[in-house]
Amino acid sequence: MSDNAVERQEFRKTLGQFATGVTVITTLDGEGAPIGVTASSFNSVSMDPPLILWSLAKDALSLPAYQKSGAFNVHVLSIEQDELSNLFARRGADKFGDLDFVPGVNGMPLLADCAATFQCKTRHQYDGGDHCIFVGEVLACENSDRAPLVYHGGQYAAALPRQDQGATGGDEVDLQQGSFTSDFFIYLLSRAHFQFSHALLQPDAALGLQRAAYYVVAVLCQQGGLDRAEILERIAVTGHSPSEEVFDKLCDMGFVTRSAAEGGAPDGKYTVTDEGREFQVSLLARSMDLEEQVLSGFRPEEIGLFKNMLRRLIEKTDKGLSNMWS
Amino acid sequence: MSDNAVERQEFRKTLGQFATGVTVITTLDGEGAPIGVTASSFNSVSMDPPLILWSLAKDALSLPAYQKSGAFNVHVLSIEQDELSNLFARRGADKFGDLDFVPGVNGMPLLADCAATFQCKTRHQYDGGDHCIFVGEVLACENSDRAPLVYHGGQYAAALPRQDQGATGGDEVDLQQGSFTSDFFIYLLSRAHFQFSHALLQPDAALGLQRAAYYVVAVLCQQGGLDRAEILERIAVTGHSPSEEVFDKLCDMGFVTRSAAEGGAPDGKYTVTDEGREFQVSLLARSMDLEEQVLSGFRPEEIGLFKNMLRRLIEKTDKGLSNMWS
Repeated sequence: MSDNAVERQEFRKTLGQFATGVTVITTLDGEGAPIGVTASSFNSVSMDPPLILWSLAKDALSLPAYQKSGAFNVHVLSIEQDELSNLFARRGADKFGDLDFVPGVNGMPLLADCAATFQCKTRHQYDGGDHCIFVGEVLACENSDRAPLVYHGGQYAAALPRQDQGATGGDEVDLQQGSFTSDFFIYLLSRAHFQFSHALLQPDAALGLQRAAYYVVAVLCQQGGLDRAEILERIAVTGHSPSEEVFDKLCDMGFVTRSAAEGGAPDGKYTVTDEGREFQVSLLARSMDLEEQVLSGFRPEEIGLFKNMLRRLIEKTDKGLSNMWS
Repeated sequence: MSDNAVERQEFRKTLGQFATGVTVITTLDGEGAPIGVTASSFNSVSMDPPLILWSLAKDALSLPAYQKSGAFNVHVLSIEQDELSNLFARRGADKFGDLDFVPGVNGMPLLADCAATFQCKTRHQYDGGDHCIFVGEVLACENSDRAPLVYHGGQYAAALPRQDQGATGGDEVDLQQGSFTSDFFIYLLSRAHFQFSHALLQPDAALGLQRAAYYVVAVLCQQGGLDRAEILERIAVTGHSPSEEVFDKLCDMGFVTRSAAEGGAPDGKYTVTDEGREFQVSLLARSMDLEEQVLSGFRPEEIGLFKNMLRRLIEKTDKGLSNMWS
């Protein structure tokens, strides 16, 4: 837009660039029934007296209730409350049927498990074009450490600590020396994998199994009856190529059995034994424990994002690999 | 808080749970000089007419200018404009000295490179306790695809698409079968590493180098004059244990030299050659290209977060490993 006519669609899209939390604002209608609406138009106004504001469309069915009730409660939604946001954004229907709520200090419905709440009495109602601006004085407020739901660009989002922008290429690498800094992505990815795997397998050190042996067992737990060449093909992506010695050791330990070679086949087919599967199961259980421990400092929404980014990386680099990891 | 007294500190903290974008709002003072303030109290009001609002403290030095100028411009800051936010949050000083700005359609200073802008004329000024609420009619607006800066809990943040919450433990693994789903973290981390490394090293396949050989060269580029045992120790975390054959091949290719064994040493010391270093440098260059290509679908703030999460994972799993990766 460059002159004095603002198109509605353009205006809406531009407003979307301002990220906000999401609130549900409740009151009682003339018959004492709880009602509520979803609003992202909330914001702070004053510290002394403590005032906040929000806006409601003049054509909203619930407008008269908010104009007359003299009080309302603002609930800042947590990142897990997107369904509550959707529920209160719909018209009609009994929205409180399954909800956990109590009367607040102002008598208005107070919902549970939100990121924050403000219990207010209505202090001003101002004209705001096609909306009415409600300014509320805060009688009581409460906050939790729940991560808040964010709305941006028409989508729900999470607010995650801002990082230095991740450069790709550039200063990460010293091409004179063949060295690199710790900002180098493949270094970070490789080291994270190596250390996680190392921590996982360290307790097994006394078994004397090569790393490749674990991948052989993992492959055979997914599908039995593979010959050595088939197994090697599925493991190739790991950069490990287990020698015959590795297969012999797994047979000796009773984790894997080898059928007699048939006809022209140069080698028998391998199958995991019950013992081998038990070994794999105990490894997975240990891995789950380690995952929980290592990711304990991460917020749930960070873990979701972390996994999502790894998935996108995998999609980007998957050139039709063998199905070991299917 | 549970009754009618709201403490200022508690109120402020509770307000912090509502995430917002960050804006800089500019106008001209009585002498025609540009002034501006940082505000997170911005929000939308009305679609028709297009109205927005924000609040300014009554004790702000710049209040009279906003009350008299009759117009202002709102700049929604991008994630890279945290310094601009800090600049306009400070009192005094010439804030526009080094800034790129032009007069807007309303004559007010319009800054460049923001996530979005709203050029407004002042429509209402409402009382808001210790703040004045300015309602502006939008004359022109513009948005970019720049990611916005977010403010939450007293800190700058990024708004990133909400993911399903990342569960740890639980349904990821079938402990009966020893199999697991693609939500299993170590699976995702390992597969991402394997595929990235595979894509990186595939072009070298004709050289017939084992994966371990790359780690030997990497170690020797960081520090020369190590014997085989020292190298193996530094590589141990990778799960690779290069055989003598690997060292012989690297010597044959001219990437590495071996000194004669001295005294009681069972083996010589290895050093990378100029050719070996060149090989490593070309690999790093290729890796930077691959990184750029693979991460091209990621937003800069996502890459920053991705690296940060990998770093935290590395810190969590580092039990005093050898210094290969230092």
